[in-house]
Amino acid sequence: MAATALTLADAERLDRADPFLACREAFALEPGVIYLDGNSLGALPKATAPRLAQLISREWGGDLIKSWNTHDWIGAPRRVGAKIAALIGAQPTEVLAADSTSVNLFKLVTGAAMLAPSRRTIVSEPGNFPTDLYVIQGLETLLGARLRLKVAPREALGHAIDEDTALVVLTHVHYAAGRRWPMGEMTALAHAKGALMLWDLSHSAGALAVDLNAAGADLAVGCGYKYLNGGPGAPAFLFVAERHQGAIRSPLSGWMGHVAPFAFEDDYRPVSGIGRFLCGTPPILGLAALEAGVDLLAGVDMAVLEAKGLALADFFLRRVEAACPELILASPREGEDRGLHLCFTHPDAYPVVQALIERQVIGDFRAPDLLRFGFSPLYVSFRDVWRAVETLGQVLETRAFDNPRHRRMAAVT
Amino acid sequence: MAATALTLADAERLDRADPFLACREAFALEPGVIYLDGNSLGALPKATAPRLAQLISREWGGDLIKSWNTHDWIGAPRRVGAKIAALIGAQPTEVLAADSTSVNLFKLVTGAAMLAPSRRTIVSEPGNFPTDLYVIQGLETLLGARLRLKVAPREALGHAIDEDTALVVLTHVHYAAGRRWPMGEMTALAHAKGALMLWDLSHSAGALAVDLNAAGADLAVGCGYKYLNGGPGAPAFLFVAERHQGAIRSPLSGWMGHVAPFAFEDDYRPVSGIGRFLCGTPPILGLAALEAGVDLLAGVDMAVLEAKGLALADFFLRRVEAACPELILASPREGEDRGLHLCFTHPDAYPVVQALIERQVIGDFRAPDLLRFGFSPLYVSFRDVWRAVETLGQVLETRAFDNPRHRRMAAVT
Repeated sequence: MAATALTLADAERLDRADPFLACREAFALEPGVIYLDGNSLGALPKATAPRLAQLISREWGGDLIKSWNTHDWIGAPRRVGAKIAALIGAQPTEVLAADSTSVNLFKLVTGAAMLAPSRRTIVSEPGNFPTDLYVIQGLETLLGARLRLKVAPREALGHAIDEDTALVVLTHVHYAAGRRWPMGEMTALAHAKGALMLWDLSHSAGALAVDLNAAGADLAVGCGYKYLNGGPGAPAFLFVAERHQGAIRSPLSGWMGHVAPFAFEDDYRPVSGIGRFLCGTPPILGLAALEAGVDLLAGVDMAVLEAKGLALADFFLRRVEAACPELILASPREGEDRGLHLCFTHPDAYPVVQALIERQVIGDFRAPDLLRFGFSPLYVSFRDVWRAVETLGQVLETRAFDNPRHRRMAAVT
Repeated sequence: MAATALTLADAERLDRADPFLACREAFALEPGVIYLDGNSLGALPKATAPRLAQLISREWGGDLIKSWNTHDWIGAPRRVGAKIAALIGAQPTEVLAADSTSVNLFKLVTGAAMLAPSRRTIVSEPGNFPTDLYVIQGLETLLGARLRLKVAPREALGHAIDEDTALVVLTHVHYAAGRRWPMGEMTALAHAKGALMLWDLSHSAGALAVDLNAAGADLAVGCGYKYLNGGPGAPAFLFVAERHQGAIRSPLSGWMGHVAPFAFEDDYRPVSGIGRFLCGTPPILGLAALEAGVDLLAGVDMAVLEAKGLALADFFLRRVEAACPELILASPREGEDRGLHLCFTHPDAYPVVQALIERQVIGDFRAPDLLRFGFSPLYVSFRDVWRAVETLGQVLETRAFDNPRHRRMAAVT
């Protein structure tokens, strides 16, 4: 892009060159809506409603209990996991779609802690996505003196990892600031001290060209309802590198992780491989919706997708800096240092976001004073970005946000 | 019923007097299908498909992220929990719909063990539903010497509970034999030794007149996809008696159990009340389907429902004893001692079940040699029962099951 001011014609030119232009048609977004919150809840794929209708009426309603076999419901966690694996640089047998991100974190954090009982710390960063810290704190409470969460800010994290560290838990792309950790470098740092490395890919999977195995990652979790477009509260996923699958055990040893669940034995014997990280009966409706979302990424070159997302964010940033001087960037400026969303601070961030939503530009607010905009490359266009900043500029300039209706906080912000 | 042989006319007479006769119309069962496996996967309510279509297209597709507030997605676990509470003798604020039965077991078993750290055993029975034992074994492995699973057969269970027992975990109605524990009596036995009592209601909720608070129960879990008709892998539920809600903590301290999840604080502070047993983001599709199922039980007198279910089972049993002498009853004879399903042993149980399924009489097989038939009172009629036994008698008499096609075992049995 030229260093001169960007124009609508630039946006139109970029859209014409966009290899993902046709993908927008695969989503059921209403005309006029500019959806910059796909990093919170991905948009609805058009394939999802008919798939769920078929699953409910024909499979559940028609074939009833037989569907566990005839429609391979029982294989869904592994099948969807294998499809996600292709997006994050993992082998098909290293990923499972199951439970929530929080529950999967507990499985893997606890499993890793049990692998190295003499190591007493789990290292993370303050301000990580809360559930990552909370889950470690829950394990800390459970295990007492045996284990301690140790948080260190980004710049001191290297020093915090030592011979007492069992595991390092980091979110690849920060949920607010959008900062991106260098995955290979940090993994090597953990390994140098004999610690394992767990990546939370909630804001990366389906958005960035993640390569877990190239980075040497040990463990990972991630979210199904953001860039994977799996629907509200979709099942999450987990990754366990093949070299660890023999040794690591899930503390959530439910029947679906048993070597022979339908033998109904009294003693737990984990199945070999990734299946031991299953726990209860898989959520078939949620898995089917997740699969419809993940299928839209089949065969996509993730590097090209990431490049489009970063270009969208760059375009947005340059336009904001030109049109909305009162917004202060709270994300890294360079694309290589962040994911596909941008945060800005503004003292009236909450009502500004509400005023934007009323004008069909949907971003979100993150406490205490952040506006957050995500650029999901499958369905956001450069023209959307242009129009979003036009609207944002008007809202700020006319102070259209400054009224009680927009200041009223909702339960979920 | 008369002691003389039952006839088709008896079945028809009982159907005419059935207060739940019209309920069958609320389910999308295909004509001709006799579904005696609602205790494994409940039938499809007709309301589910349109509800999910609306949720997907209008709420997710149309209102996108706003739906967490405007359609109260965020309230779904508590709202559906409160509806389930009404079916199991609990207060609305004592039940939550969330996660799987296995994951909920882990939360409550671990929470109870942490409440009484000086007590070192959790008591259950051998042959309990496997996941109940496996989850306790997982905690045993995690906590090492601090905790031990102690199993004792039914007749010795009273002696196994002692001052070292933190918790007793029993399944109210056994998944195979169908035996029913006397809930009040066993709870009192646990309490007499200072132990807490956890009931697994997977085969009771939505089927029997359960009264957790009358029994003095401390904790409970249960399944959403059996008699609650919530769909394959539906979210499960958990119950924590109000008196324990201040003290007990969930080891799965995810962000949704935090007092202020959207404040994004670094330190976990559980919300007061049942909400602290939430973990990750709630599965909205699954919860909506579960709610459609649970709504069919709203206002139902559970004692009347249970009475119909037991009458169906009794009718089946009397007919089997008359028509299928080679089947040996493996469930208690008296209705007050069991739930709404019956098991019979037969050396060819697996192929017999397959031959029945081919003839549209759907029951299931449980290893090693059990035929299991469940009588879900909302959609099974006495005429269904009559016809089921007619078909079963023919299959046995003609040895129609005796061929390789029926002997081929499927992945899920």
